[in-house]
This record gives sequence, C-alpha cells and structure tokens, in this order.
Amino acid sequence: MCRHITTKRRQKASQMAILLTHATIATMTAGYGLIEDGALVAEGERIVWIGQTSDIPAQWQTLPAQNCGGRLLTPGLVDCHSHIVFGGHRAVEFEMRLNGASYEEVARAGGGILSTVTATRAASEAELLAAALARADLMIAAGATTIEVKSGYGLTVADELKMLRVARQIAAHRRLRVVTTHLAAHAIPPEYKGRPDAYIDEVAIPSLHAAQAQGLIDAVDAFCEGIAFSPAQVARLFRAAQDLGLPIKLHAEQLSDLKGAVLAAGMGALSCDHVEYIGADGVAAMAAAGTVAVILPGAFYTLRETRKPPIEAFRAAGVPMAVATDFNPGSSPVASLPLSMNMACTLFRMTPLEALQGTTTHAARALGLTDRGTIAPGQLADLCLWDATHPAELSYRIGATPLHTRIFGGRLDA
Amino acid sequence: MCRHITTKRRQKASQMAILLTHATIATMTAGYGLIEDGALVAEGERIVWIGQTSDIPAQWQTLPAQNCGGRLLTPGLVDCHSHIVFGGHRAVEFEMRLNGASYEEVARAGGGILSTVTATRAASEAELLAAALARADLMIAAGATTIEVKSGYGLTVADELKMLRVARQIAAHRRLRVVTTHLAAHAIPPEYKGRPDAYIDEVAIPSLHAAQAQGLIDAVDAFCEGIAFSPAQVARLFRAAQDLGLPIKLHAEQLSDLKGAVLAAGMGALSCDHVEYIGADGVAAMAAAGTVAVILPGAFYTLRETRKPPIEAFRAAGVPMAVATDFNPGSSPVASLPLSMNMACTLFRMTPLEALQGTTTHAARALGLTDRGTIAPGQLADLCLWDATHPAELSYRIGATPLHTRIFGGRLDA
Ligand SMILES: [Zn+2]
Ligand SMILES: [Zn+2]
Repeated sequence: MCRHITTKRRQKASQMAILLTHATIATMTAGYGLIEDGALVAEGERIVWIGQTSDIPAQWQTLPAQNCGGRLLTPGLVDCHSHIVFGGHRAVEFEMRLNGASYEEVARAGGGILSTVTATRAASEAELLAAALARADLMIAAGATTIEVKSGYGLTVADELKMLRVARQIAAHRRLRVVTTHLAAHAIPPEYKGRPDAYIDEVAIPSLHAAQAQGLIDAVDAFCEGIAFSPAQVARLFRAAQDLGLPIKLHAEQLSDLKGAVLAAGMGALSCDHVEYIGADGVAAMAAAGTVAVILPGAFYTLRETRKPPIEAFRAAGVPMAVATDFNPGSSPVASLPLSMNMACTLFRMTPLEALQGTTTHAARALGLTDRGTIAPGQLADLCLWDATHPAELSYRIGATPLHTRIFGGRLDA
Repeated sequence: MCRHITTKRRQKASQMAILLTHATIATMTAGYGLIEDGALVAEGERIVWIGQTSDIPAQWQTLPAQNCGGRLLTPGLVDCHSHIVFGGHRAVEFEMRLNGASYEEVARAGGGILSTVTATRAASEAELLAAALARADLMIAAGATTIEVKSGYGLTVADELKMLRVARQIAAHRRLRVVTTHLAAHAIPPEYKGRPDAYIDEVAIPSLHAAQAQGLIDAVDAFCEGIAFSPAQVARLFRAAQDLGLPIKLHAEQLSDLKGAVLAAGMGALSCDHVEYIGADGVAAMAAAGTVAVILPGAFYTLRETRKPPIEAFRAAGVPMAVATDFNPGSSPVASLPLSMNMACTLFRMTPLEALQGTTTHAARALGLTDRGTIAPGQLADLCLWDATHPAELSYRIGATPLHTRIFGGRLDA
C-alpha cells in the first residue's frame, strides 16, 4: 500500500517536471546546435535547463530520468502550411487521370477543387472534425507538435466559418497546437464565376470580419494567381486584415510570376508560399522584409512541375526557408513533414540542415511564433525523440518516420 | 470463474477461425475484383470462404465477427525487392552531397556502396538482425506481410552467408514471411577490382553453393551493369543457380541497356528489376517468358533519373508489372509500399490498379508464389484492412499509410 502511494506521488511529480538524459540534442539555435550526451529539464510546459548529462544541476538530479539512449532530440516539428479540413477525397479523380481521362472529363465527373468545395459544404461540422482529426493523427505520428490549418474550401461566409470552427476544435481533441488561417480567397466558387471582385467584397472580407469577431483566426492568406485572385484584389483583402491587426501571408508565384511576393513582402507578410516562379524582385523584397519563403515540395511533386523555387537565390539573399506539407486533397495528399523534408532535399537540393530549420525554427517564424522551433530555456517543451543519431537522417529517409517518442507541453506521449 | 473459462475458450476458438464482416474486399482476382459489404472466413492460416456479409454459411455464423465498418480489405502487401540487411546508414553521405561535395570527396570520406560493405562486414549477426528488424517493422507498419530480402553487401563467402542467416532469422522474430535471395554478384569489392571473373568464380559461385547447402536461399539475383557484372558473367552464375534448381532474377537495364533482360528472360527468370533502359527486344523476351517487370520508383526518385521504364510497352505486351521498395541505404531508403505505389503512379503514370496488382498478385508472382497476393479460398489469410473505402486511395495518398489492422496467417495483429 505504501509502495502504491509512492508510485502515485512519483507520477504526480513527473507530470510537473521531466528530465531527459543521454540525448543527442539538436537545439537548432546555431545550425544544428548539437549537444552530445545532452540532458534537458522541463517544468510545466517549458524547458528550464539544457546541457550535458554530466552537468545536471543538483536541484533536478533527483527527478526520475528518461534515458534517451543516445537518440536524437529535436524541437517538435512545425507544419506551417496545411489544408486538412475538407470533405471527401480525390482518389477517384487521381485514378481517372491516370486512366487517361481529360481535365474536361474529370470536371464533368465532378472532380477538381470544386468537388472538394461541394463535399465540404455538404459535410457537418462533426464530419469535418472527424476527418481532420484522422489527418492530424498522421501528422502527429510523423512528429508534428504545431500545425497551421487554413480555411478555403467553404467559399461562403457560413462555410468558411464552419471550417475555421473545426480547425479551432482540433487542439481540444489532440495533443497538438493549431494556428488557424483565413483563406476564403482561395478560389472563385461557381456562383461568382467572372466576378472575383464581388467575391472579395461579399464573401472574403465579410467572412474575415466575422471570423475575427468570433476569435477564429490568427492570420489571413490568399491565392494570388491567374486562376484565382489578382494582386489588386489580394491587396484589398490584406488591407482589411491589417485594419483588424492580423498578420498576412500569401500563396504566391506557384504557377506564374504575378509579383504577389513583392506585394505581400511590401506589406510585411509573414511568409510567401510555393514561390516557384518568383523573380529577383520578389526575392529582394522578401529579404528586405524578413518574409519567410515556405517551400512546398509535395505539390511540386504531385503536379509534376518542372520549375523549382530559387533555393540558391533565397540562400544568397538570406531569406529564411520553411518546409511544409501543404496537406490538401488535390495537389498534396501528404501528411509527413519528414517526407516533405526528403523531397525538399531530393527535388530542390536543400540541405538536411535547411530542411530541419525549415520544419522547426523557420516554420515557427513563418507563423510569427518565437516560443518554439528551438530547444532553449524558456521555450515550449514540445520535442521529438527520434530513432536516429544524426539530424541528417530525418531528411535522408524517404518518409519512414523513425519517431521514438513525442513530448508535448512537457509531457511524453503515452 | 466460469465466465473466465468461457472467455478463454472463445479466445482459443478465435485463434482457429476468424470471421470478418462488412468489408469492401479487393480480391485482386480480376482487376480489383471488388466485393461490396463482403465477408471472409479464415481457418488456421488459410482463407476458407469469401462472399457477401448477407451470405455467410450457417456453419460460420456463430463465429465472433470482426465488423470492418465498410473499410477496404486487400491481400497483405508483398515487397518483392529489398536490401534491408546492412550495417550503418548513408545519411552523412546524403548530407555531404547536398552540401556540394564531389563524388571523389564522398568516396575519400568512405562513402558510397563500399561504406555499406565495410559496415556490414564489421557488424555482428546480432547487430545486423537488430537493424533489419527495425526496418522490417517499418515495412509491416505500411502493410507488408511478405518481403524479399537480398544479400549483397558482404561480398565475401562468409559475409554473404552471414547476411543470409540474418535474413532467414527475421521471420522468427516478426509476423512476416521472408523470402531470401543470394545477391553476391551485386558489386565488385576492392580486393577484386578489375577481376570480376575471379570474383564470380571465387566468391559468387562458392557462396551460392554454400548458401544452398545450408538452406539459406530461395532464389539467385545479380546486378548486370557496366559498373557491376557483364551478361556473360551473369550467365555463368545463373547456370550454377539452375544446376542447383534455384530460380533466377536480375537487376537489369537500370542505367544502360546491356541486354540483361533478354538473357534473364531467355533463361526463364522470375523477374527483371529496374528496367528503365530496356529495349523492345527485352520487353518481347519478358513477355514470351512470362517474366515480371519489377518497377522500383524509389531509386529513380532518389537518383533523380530521367529515363522511365517503358510502362506502356509492358502494358501493351502483357508483361506483368510489380512495384517494390528496393529498400536500401544508398539509392532507396524507403520502407513503405504504399509510398512506392504513389511514386509509380505519379512518376511513371502507372494506374492505381496496376500499382496494387504490383504489390499483391504480381509481386507474389515475381517471387514464384501462388498462395498469396489474391483473396480467395485456399490462399494464405494474410490481409490488410485499410482506413479507406476505395483501393485507389492507397496510391493517391503520398506515404500516409491508413493501415487499420493487419491480418497475418489468419490472426489479427495485436
Ligand atoms: Zn496551400
Ligand atoms: Zn536492388
């Protein structure tokens, strides 16, 4: 009986503080910032100490230690660009195309982004949540501790708000931090065909106001492209966002160079995403503004694009690069950040260090967050312990996530 | 107490027979061979009945049913080409190359295939087994129930036999069927540089005889390429294999067209693997012999090759196509068959049906096996239940394995 009580007390103490020992720690504070045979103490949700296992201060030496056995400890991964709230899937369309169907035939069969809009509008909030949680589970299993989730398949005020309420609910059901982004300016729905300005005025801006009033959003995004919205339309939406005090970001230069990045960076955007077709002016504007380039190799891979983002130009200009899944049903049905890191290295020749910065430090920065993405005292104790010894292994393997244990808010996953 | 006994009896009964109900069954017997609202009975290791849930024969209606809730049931996946027994990894080399190191610099730092040979020779059997089991676990998690494992990083008689003993041990530690292949003719080790014929005579053929005498192998493979072995050298090895009654297969036409496929098919090979550079003569020879083309998109992706295997020519000639991971440390560190299926579709324009045939029916055929790869009475009850409703979803998703439950030898995984 006495022993039982002791065990219970220990469990309670370990909920308040954890001690990890004998880890290879990639702090990501200066390059990998490796600490060999490292140790870490977290109290509550925060890291309070890191250093060598041999140097653990006396006050924490009595904590029950989790021996990491030399495994690699990194910040929890941050997926700074995803679209995981949606109805339906597009597997049948994927199969139709591979069986030789033309785009017209696919569209006639109800395929394309509008099929996702139709399915999302038809779905209840509970159905959307169940589907989003299944996707979030895949992201968690691959090491994510923070994800961004966008709206953009509702395209009515009510359906955009429905998507954002679902996105906000994810964190109540999973050990995951969720940042939500308003993306009503994602596509032009059939009822606004040929009237994008009316859509901005009647749906995008009103849904933005309502979402902000209801506390549903952390940032505002848009898709600036010939098939979506012009820079002038995006600028109008962004001014409305800034009037509300919301940060902005942009799907820019994915298929052509409309100078969206110049616009967004000029307005102080957190990030410009995709950016395959960005020109030197866009790179310079992002460098000047400190805007993050979010690299999305999953969509490049799926769409069999050939124009790569200008990694060397970003590197030379000092533009921070993030890497994200872009998890979405049409162009990037990928849940794994380590797989996205491998693709960033293999397809775009990013280095494994850049890929890991891209899913930790720079991904946090793309979300405007400074309390995660590195391992240092004061930071959130969101961590991944990997069955690996060197951080390059995370990018080297193709989608095999050797995740050993995830630590979220100072607590080990069960 | 009485209740306890009843439970035990039930458990014992359920080990002998299982009943799955309300599944979408892809039997893979004619195309997908879909059965909606299907049911399946297995007794011992074998499937004894499949049909509609409404038609379950009376004798099995009292079995405790596993309700599949409409989920997709497929044959357990078969990975017919892997190299998962090896020492070390090549993450550091991957990183060096992405940081701009030349091939000479990588080689000087001990990189390349010979670094794997060195690490494999240095490793104990226990170390190799532990590493191989970790890789097998990733393959199992992605749906594999049968895998092929090759030697080929030992390149001495003793080290090839060591690798094969390790490969044979995997099935004793995991719920996985393992087929082993002798691949001493994989590369020319430094001590035989410029003397490939001597290597065939002194290592490849003697290790083949020893491996067969010790019951360690099921087939014989070789790498026919300018940087490896010539068709004449391969033919000599294959004759030795056939004298022992062993089936043959070949790494053929990966980087150039040496007519390895013509040779191998002419000798009745089970499969020719890679085959990016195969000519019309090779395709015709394979069609005539019924040789399977094993498509390995992971290596194509990692090596950033541009020449694709002639999928349309194989399709037109009726050459069965399998899809495998080629899991290896240098050119294809990928463990997931569904990810390989996605790559086969995305990179090579195979259809989702061909991709699933490629990891079930045709993969079994590439191993000379007819007792798995389809769902039918008499077949092994190796099955995968997926969180999916249509078989195209397995190829559509990029490496997110929605595996719900694996059934191995008539028993559900815990
Ligand atoms: Zn996006
Ligand atoms: Zn191979």
